[in-house]
Order: sequence, then structure tokens, then C-alpha cells
Amino acid sequence: MNTLGRHVLAELYGCSLDLLDDLDAVSEHLRAAAESVGATVVGSAFHRYAPQGVSGVLLIAESHVSVHTWPEARYVAVDIFTCGGLDPRPGIRHLARAFGAESVRMHEVVRGTSKDVSDAVLPADVTVIARDFE
Amino acid sequence: MNTLGRHVLAELYGCSLDLLDDLDAVSEHLRAAAESVGATVVGSAFHRYAPQGVSGVLLIAESHVSVHTWPEARYVAVDIFTCGGLDPRPGIRHLARAFGAESVRMHEVVRGTSKDVSDAVLPADVTVIARDFE
Repeated sequence: MNTLGRHVLAELYGCSLDLLDDLDAVSEHLRAAAESVGATVVGSAFHRYAPQGVSGVLLIAESHVSVHTWPEARYVAVDIFTCGGLDPRPGIRHLARAFGAESVRMHEVVRGTSKDVSDAVLPADVTVIARDFE
Repeated sequence: MNTLGRHVLAELYGCSLDLLDDLDAVSEHLRAAAESVGATVVGSAFHRYAPQGVSGVLLIAESHVSVHTWPEARYVAVDIFTCGGLDPRPGIRHLARAFGAESVRMHEVVRGTSKDVSDAVLPADVTVIARDFE
């Protein structure tokens, strides 16, 4: 199996409070993030929680983009999973700017990996799940 | 900030070919996985690709459950992100059984972590993204 995808999880801290409870704004930023990655949106789902918080996900032809906001913590959890050679990181940077994040942490997981990738020396913020192959 | 969530990414290898291109079956298995975790579904999006493959995501009150299938590789990428103290792993196990996976690899990322968790000694298959705090 070849490497199929890149899955970047990001923690956005210290975000602008006024945006984190606004479903329309979250939707707009998510679509712009998908565009910044070069992804094609093929489906979506959004939900606003009571008393606060928004979840949103875009299905893209290249996997998905999701956000979950916790206004009470000024925190947003993001994950962008891409295949087809797209780099998810511009989408994370877009969302970090859009939400006014003071601090961003990312971790990338290589998905559907081949043995070649599994044996490679990877940066500290990149994980391969499957390290053993027959 | 306290720990907000558990995000388990799973690689399902050697899955049953006949299920991976069946949107209705994928949807049913995803809902059953959410139920096995004790999650409440609040939204969904599904897409069937040409010539093959299905993506599906459930928004749950506790974050999300997603699958992407690659029938040509008999591979399914799963991620289940839960907050509120729910354990995502029964959902992964449910999907692995449902898709007839011959092999499963999981990696858990602790989301929205506090300093206490960040400093803890964690199992090898658990990563904390944010290791530095002010």
C-alpha cells in the first residue's frame, strides 16, 4: 500500500471569543480553509451546541476538514485529512488566522502508509501509526 | 485548560471488499459505532466517489466519527474524536469488526490538554500535541 494521506491535527488556543459561537462564520472559514488547501468540497454538516460551541465538518474529495469550538476555553480543535498529494497545513494556518489564535500546535499523522514511509526518519511532529508490516 | 477530548485515529487493513463501496452499509456501521461509544448523533454527511470509495462523517454531541474507504487497497481510515469522558476505542473495534479488518492500528491523540496531562508519562500509542505551556 502506498501512502494515502496526511492527517494534521491542530490545537488553536487563545481564539477570538466572538467567532467561536457563530455557525455562519465557522462555516465560511472552513470553506475558505478547504479552498486554501486546493480541496473540493463534496458534503458538509454543522451543529451549534447549547449553551455554546460549534462543530463543523466538510467532506472533501480528498477526505475531510473539521472544527470543534469551545468558546469557554477560547479553544478550537481542527483536523484536516487530505489525500491526493494535498498539503493540509495551509488550511490550518488559514483557520488559525481566521479565529485569531494566539498559539497553534500541530501534529501530523501519515495515513495508510507503505513500509518505505514507515521506515523513514520523520520530524518530531509527525507520527506514523503502522510501524509493523508483514 | 482541562483535557477536552480523546482523538483516536485508526487504520483498518485487509477489509471486506464488498462493504467498502456501499454507502448505506457504511452509514449504518458508522451509526452503530457512535452508539457503541455512547455518543449522540447531531449531524451527518456522506459521499460516494467515482469510480469507488465512500466517505462519511457523523457529528456527535461529543465531536465526530469519520470513515474514508479505499476499496482498491482494502483499507479504511477511521477517526473518532470524543469529549465528555467517552472512550472512542469501542467505536474503532466496532468498525474493525463490521468491515472485517484483518489488521488494525490505532493512535490516540489527547486534545486540548492541561499541563498535568502534558507532563504525564503516556503509553507509546498516545501522543499529546501541546507540550509547552506558559
